Parts: sequence; structure tokens; C-alpha cells
Amino acid sequence: MKLYDLELSGNCYKVRLFAALTGIEIDIEAVDFLAGEHKKSPVIDLNPWGELPTFTDGDLVLRDSQAILVYLAQAYADEKWYPASAAARAEIQQWLSTSANEIQHGPADARLIDKFGFKLNKEHSLVISDRILGLLEAHLEANDWLALGHPTIADCAAMPYVGLGWEGGVSLDDYPNIQAWIARIKALPGFIPMPGI
Amino acid sequence: MKLYDLELSGNCYKVRLFAALTGIEIDIEAVDFLAGEHKKSPVIDLNPWGELPTFTDGDLVLRDSQAILVYLAQAYADEKWYPASAAARAEIQQWLSTSANEIQHGPADARLIDKFGFKLNKEHSLVISDRILGLLEAHLEANDWLALGHPTIADCAAMPYVGLGWEGGVSLDDYPNIQAWIARIKALPGFIPMPGI
Repeated sequence: MKLYDLELSGNCYKVRLFAALTGIEIDIEAVDFLAGEHKKSPVIDLNPWGELPTFTDGDLVLRDSQAILVYLAQAYADEKWYPASAAARAEIQQWLSTSANEIQHGPADARLIDKFGFKLNKEHSLVISDRILGLLEAHLEANDWLALGHPTIADCAAMPYVGLGWEGGVSLDDYPNIQAWIARIKALPGFIPMPGI
Repeated sequence: MKLYDLELSGNCYKVRLFAALTGIEIDIEAVDFLAGEHKKSPVIDLNPWGELPTFTDGDLVLRDSQAILVYLAQAYADEKWYPASAAARAEIQQWLSTSANEIQHGPADARLIDKFGFKLNKEHSLVISDRILGLLEAHLEANDWLALGHPTIADCAAMPYVGLGWEGGVSLDDYPNIQAWIARIKALPGFIPMPGI
């Protein structure tokens, strides 16, 4: 298995983190993002979206961080990370969608603007951030983990850009339950950090 | 099973469409969105996000359209709609993420602005729309369906807001392969429309 990787990408970190927590071995190939290597061969041949992470396992090619988590969890990890029942899968899917939607367009976009100079609407990213952090905070007041009462791929998908939001001016100071959740993830056996987390 | 529903919501339509294609019977309860009933009891008690669709099956409550598709497909539908292998699940997940991310913040946001007066950035929604429609068009040049060579929940998740984009000024005139894909979905046994599609 190979991960075409960017160290500063929270989406790539989702995959590195889950692999570390579960002991899955993946070859990491660093891609020079600033040089635009993700828009050139071999990445663009594998992934027409020209994005990182790009992941391969034999003939299988995946382009989305949530999809890579689903694949690794079902194919290679203990079932507890992605239990097989329809209700469990759906509960986790809610947070995979939240990760691709509100968390991506809230704290992740805010960070893209401040840290990497992306031309996005900062005010809009902060509005989305406020809403999703409030909902997360309330959920984590009654729950130690996002889904099913234990760590799952939902936590690996959602945490990185929540934890990196401060690099876009999205502070967690007013969200003690979110801070405690991130601390619980950091205390899991095998946890690895990334720059900013 | 009950779906708290808004007829004009593409996210609710994803659920109604999949249930129609698969013969799953769900009680539909119309919620008066303009009167803010989605922010009041009973919806807000079930779904603190105050959004539609909200779905229940016994004690299970789901708040995300992609999650509801995952649940219905695995619990009640023929396996072809959501095959069980890790590779199949991951390939479909890519499109569930795309539906929650680029399609939601491209054509769906454009429609929210034009049709419902939402205060979002129209220009940004059109930039996202152009990119995702171009990627979709290229994918559908070589594929009749989004994933696995046959209809899956990926098509049900992605099609509605692509098909509704014209209500936000996102035309499909330059995208014949997308038009043909939507026509294939409309020709599936059991297909139901919604206003605008």
C-alpha cells in the first residue's frame, strides 16, 4: 500500500493517524505540493482530481481521505474501528459527511486562507466553524467519542482539522469538551502527531 | 421508519429516491421549513442540528442524507446498491464525500442562494461547481455510473443537486455525459422525480 502524502495536509494526516493507531503499514511517498507535483505524473495519472491524499493498494486507487479510512478499517483493522452493522456504519457515516462538509469548509478552509493564502471567504469559514464547533461541543458533553461510545474512524476523520483550526484563527478556548476529546485521542496507544497538533 | 421531509430539499430527495428505487416503505412526514418547524419539537429533539432530512427507525435516529442511504442500503436493500467488500465500500464512499463536499458547496449552495435567498458567496459556489462538473463529466465519459459499473447509492447521493443546479444558474448544457447519466437514473425502474428534476 502506498500513500502519496503531504505532511501539512490534515486529510493526509487522517490516514497516517489511523494507520499508526491500528499498526497498518503503508509506504509513505512525500509529494512536493509547493512544486505542484500533485498535478503531475504519477499522482495526476492515478487521481484526476490532482489532490492529496492519493492512495493505492494493488490496482485499487482512492482519492478521498474518508474513503481511505473506510477501506483500511474494513480490510485491515480490528472491527471495533468500523463495526459491521448497518446502524453502526450509518452512525459513523454521519461524521464522515460532517468531516467532508462542515469541518472541511469551516476550520479547514479558515486554515487554508491564513496558512496557505487560499482565496476563500474567511468570514464564511468562521460562520461555519462557529456552528459546527458548537454542535460538536454539545455532542461531546454527553459522549467521550463521536460514535458508538468508543474510538472509531469517525474520530480520525473529524479531529485533524478541528485540532488545526487555530492555524486559521478558529480557537478551541471556549470548547472544553472538544479539547478533552482531542486529549483522549492523543492518549490512544500508537497516536502520532502532525505539525500543528 | 419515518422521514421528516421537505419536498424541495435535494438531501431529502436522495432518501425518497433511493426508497422508491428499492421498494423500501418509509412514512413521510412533511415539515414546514418556512415556518421553522425543523428548529422546533419534535425534529430538534431528534436532531440537534435542526436539519432535514431527519430519519428514525425504532430507536435509531440519523441526521445526514448519506448516512441514511448507507443505513437503508445495508439494512433493507439488495446488496448491489452497496456491495459489502472493502474496495466497493471505499469506491462508493468517495462519492458520498463528494456529495457532502463539492456538490453541496457548489451547485447546492448556488441554488440555496438563488432559490431561497441564503447569504452565501455565489461566485465561490460557481467556482466549485465548474470544477466538480468538469471532473464528473470526465468520469462519466468513461463510466455509465459513478461507482462499480452499475447503479449504487453513490448515484442517489450525487445526482440530486447536480440535477437541481440549474435553479442556481449552474447549467448542464456543456456536460453531455452528465446529462446522459441523469437520464439513465431517470430510466431506472421505480424512479420518482422532485420539483426541478
